[in-house]
Amino acid sequence: MISFDKIQFNNLEHRDRARLINSLAGVKPVNLIGTQNSDGVKNLCIVSSVVHLGADPALFGFVIRPDVVPRDTLDNLRVHPFLTVNHVHEDIVEQAHQTSARYEKGVDEFEKCGLKSEYIDHHPAPFVFSSHIKFAAKFLREIKIEENGTHFLICEITAVYCPKDALDEDYSLNITRSKTVGVSGLDRYLSLKSLGRLSYAKPEKPLKWISSF
Amino acid sequence: MISFDKIQFNNLEHRDRARLINSLAGVKPVNLIGTQNSDGVKNLCIVSSVVHLGADPALFGFVIRPDVVPRDTLDNLRVHPFLTVNHVHEDIVEQAHQTSARYEKGVDEFEKCGLKSEYIDHHPAPFVFSSHIKFAAKFLREIKIEENGTHFLICEITAVYCPKDALDEDYSLNITRSKTVGVSGLDRYLSLKSLGRLSYAKPEKPLKWISSF
Repeated sequence: MISFDKIQFNNLEHRDRARLINSLAGVKPVNLIGTQNSDGVKNLCIVSSVVHLGADPALFGFVIRPDVVPRDTLDNLRVHPFLTVNHVHEDIVEQAHQTSARYEKGVDEFEKCGLKSEYIDHHPAPFVFSSHIKFAAKFLREIKIEENGTHFLICEITAVYCPKDALDEDYSLNITRSKTVGVSGLDRYLSLKSLGRLSYAKPEKPLKWISSF
Repeated sequence: MISFDKIQFNNLEHRDRARLINSLAGVKPVNLIGTQNSDGVKNLCIVSSVVHLGADPALFGFVIRPDVVPRDTLDNLRVHPFLTVNHVHEDIVEQAHQTSARYEKGVDEFEKCGLKSEYIDHHPAPFVFSSHIKFAAKFLREIKIEENGTHFLICEITAVYCPKDALDEDYSLNITRSKTVGVSGLDRYLSLKSLGRLSYAKPEKPLKWISSF
């Protein structure tokens, strides 16, 4: 067992500390966020901080770091509050990771990274054509995290798109069928294999594996 | 392709909508949060919303739902602002899931769910003994998400513990070596397999896979 107290990890070289701390939470979801500015110039960025906030209303949040320059996604959402969230799957990992490069403001990352965009049902933000599971959302508001200048963005889901075979009968998504990936830290991509689904937990009642998929 | 607009997913039966919306973000990290009240009564709860906020200072957030009754974790942190975060791995999935049962207030979930607790380096909150990667933290403050009554808790990491073989030379954690799992939706547990690590992305520079582990 290795341990780091606060003094020890604060004394690590800047990038080493970032790698250690960033990989602590465990596996993170990998999504591509599509936005556009008021002139219709598209932007795409990879985000590993999408977090479920509630189903009724259907809300999620995600984090925008203070030091992302240019900060196209946040700038776009402030003037045009519509976005798409697109799962990254095993066949588009490299293109998705490439969107994290610091392109100049106004550059269309879809084109630069080899990902085709599409518009669906008149939602005014671009989707990733090749993404299997994706959803449309409206940006509601941002919360400033004063401790480090980060922005936490709260958004409402307005439409959902998924392949038929990734939707179970009880409306849970099977994200292994869509080949959705995860990420650990900044750059380690992970494929997912289902261990199965566990029954609803109740005190003094044994759990059952209710599905092996 | 199946699609749901807002009217369609809002018309789903309550639990069906919860399953669909909760599984949209992709894979989520699974952690056990250990706390205790001012009398030293321990509490353990499973959380799939831990999100990295920054490395300097080392911050993370997580979500507490408004309808969790009793809400031991939040109640404990308000009077005793120390916690532990413990990765769930493949050998303790059932015990970890069992902590989501609604035990009465004051029940020690470690004991009820068959997980041994331990105290490390005088941190005043209990760790999960059998968890491989774990960290100590201090609760800083809560943000109320007015849209649905959810609480977003901001915490600072104060110590890190991990097995030697799960720490790469550059201080990134290899969470496949620790057999850390993920979850999709409420109950589908997922094992992780590394696809490799990708190089830092720069405009006009081809990416390289820098490690296959």
